[in-house]
Amino acid sequence: MAPQGQPAQVPDDGLTTRQRRDRPLLIVHTGQGKGKSTAAFGLALRGWAQGWPVGVFQFVKSAKWRIGEEKALRVLSASGEGGTVTWHKMGQGWSWVQARLDPAADPAAAAAEGWAQIARDLTAGTYRLYVLDELTYPLRWGWIDLDEVLAVLASRPDGQHVVITGREAPAALVDAADLVTDMTKVKHPMDAGQKGQRGIEW
Amino acid sequence: MAPQGQPAQVPDDGLTTRQRRDRPLLIVHTGQGKGKSTAAFGLALRGWAQGWPVGVFQFVKSAKWRIGEEKALRVLSASGEGGTVTWHKMGQGWSWVQARLDPAADPAAAAAEGWAQIARDLTAGTYRLYVLDELTYPLRWGWIDLDEVLAVLASRPDGQHVVITGREAPAALVDAADLVTDMTKVKHPMDAGQKGQRGIEW
Repeated sequence: MAPQGQPAQVPDDGLTTRQRRDRPLLIVHTGQGKGKSTAAFGLALRGWAQGWPVGVFQFVKSAKWRIGEEKALRVLSASGEGGTVTWHKMGQGWSWVQARLDPAADPAAAAAEGWAQIARDLTAGTYRLYVLDELTYPLRWGWIDLDEVLAVLASRPDGQHVVITGREAPAALVDAADLVTDMTKVKHPMDAGQKGQRGIEW
Repeated sequence: MAPQGQPAQVPDDGLTTRQRRDRPLLIVHTGQGKGKSTAAFGLALRGWAQGWPVGVFQFVKSAKWRIGEEKALRVLSASGEGGTVTWHKMGQGWSWVQARLDPAADPAAAAAEGWAQIARDLTAGTYRLYVLDELTYPLRWGWIDLDEVLAVLASRPDGQHVVITGREAPAALVDAADLVTDMTKVKHPMDAGQKGQRGIEW
C-alpha cells in the first residue's frame, strides 16, 4: 500500500519531483525464496498495460520453466491493447543467432551473446522495460563480466527500467540498484517432500 | 532453478508422488518489501496459461494500484487462449453486492462480504487459483475472522490453490500455509526521496 506514501527524505540532487519520479529504475529480485521471476513478470504486465515495449531475456536452459508467462505475454503483445513484449531465450538459442550458436554446446558463449544484445538494445533505447531473468547465474559463473554490465547500465539512455532476477545477486549489483527485494524463504513445500507442480512452478 | 530438484525428504504420509505433487497449495507472500502482489499476479499468469479458472479478490481501497494487472488479466481472459480470470474488487464495491453496500461507508462490512463470497466459492470449487490480494490487512484489523478463514481453507475441496498477499501475515496463517515467502526490503527508491511511478508501482 505504498504509492501514496511520502518519501523518507528529499535529496539535494537538483531534480524536480517529476524528474525524480520518472528516473528509470534498476531493480533486483534476489534471495533463496520463490517469487523473484514471478514478480518480474508481474512488472512486465504493468509495463505492457502502460503501452511500453518490453524485452524479456531469459537466461535459463529449460524452456518449460516460464512457458506460462511466455504464452501470456505473447497473447498480450498480439492483442494490440497495450505495449509489445519481445521474448528472447538462451535455452533454445537466442533468436538473433539461432543458426550459428548451440547453447547446449557452449552455454558461456550463449550467455555472453545474450548480454551483448541487451547492451546493444540498452544503447539504442529499444525497450522501456527489460526483464533479465536469472541473469545473476551467468554473472556468478563468470560467463558475463559484471563490471561491463554495471558500466552499460550506468550509462544507459534515459527512460529504460531494468529488472534483474536470480539468487545471490553480486554485492556491486545490489549497490548499483535502486530497488532491491530479497525473496526470503520462510516455508517451501519441497521441505515437506512435495515436488513442483503445474501452474505453480511453471 | 528449482523444479527439477529433489525434495529434501520423502514424508511418510501414504501418498504417491503424483498425489503429493497435485496437492493444492496455500501460498502466502508477506514482508515489508516489494513483489508480494506482483508475484501473485505472476502466478495468475501461470494458472491462466494452464487453462484454469482464476479468481482475483482485491482487498484494497484504490482501484489505481492494480489497474495494469487488471487490464492484462481481462485481455487474457477474453482471448480464449487460456483459462478465465474473474476480477472482484472491494474498492468499488464487490460486483455481486454493488447495489446495497458502499465500501467507503463501511469498509469492514465490505471486507467481510468479500470473504463470505470467497468462502462460498471455495466450498463450491469455483476456481482453481484464488488470488486474495492484501487479505492480511482486513485480517489484522479484525474485519475478517482469522479462525474462520483457516477453517474454510483447511476444509476446502480438492484442487484449489490459494495465494494470500500482504504485510504482517498472522502467525497462524503462516503455520497453515504450504509455501511462504517474505519479500524483504533491501533497498527502495523512496528511501532516496523517489516517489512511486507509472508502470512500476501500478
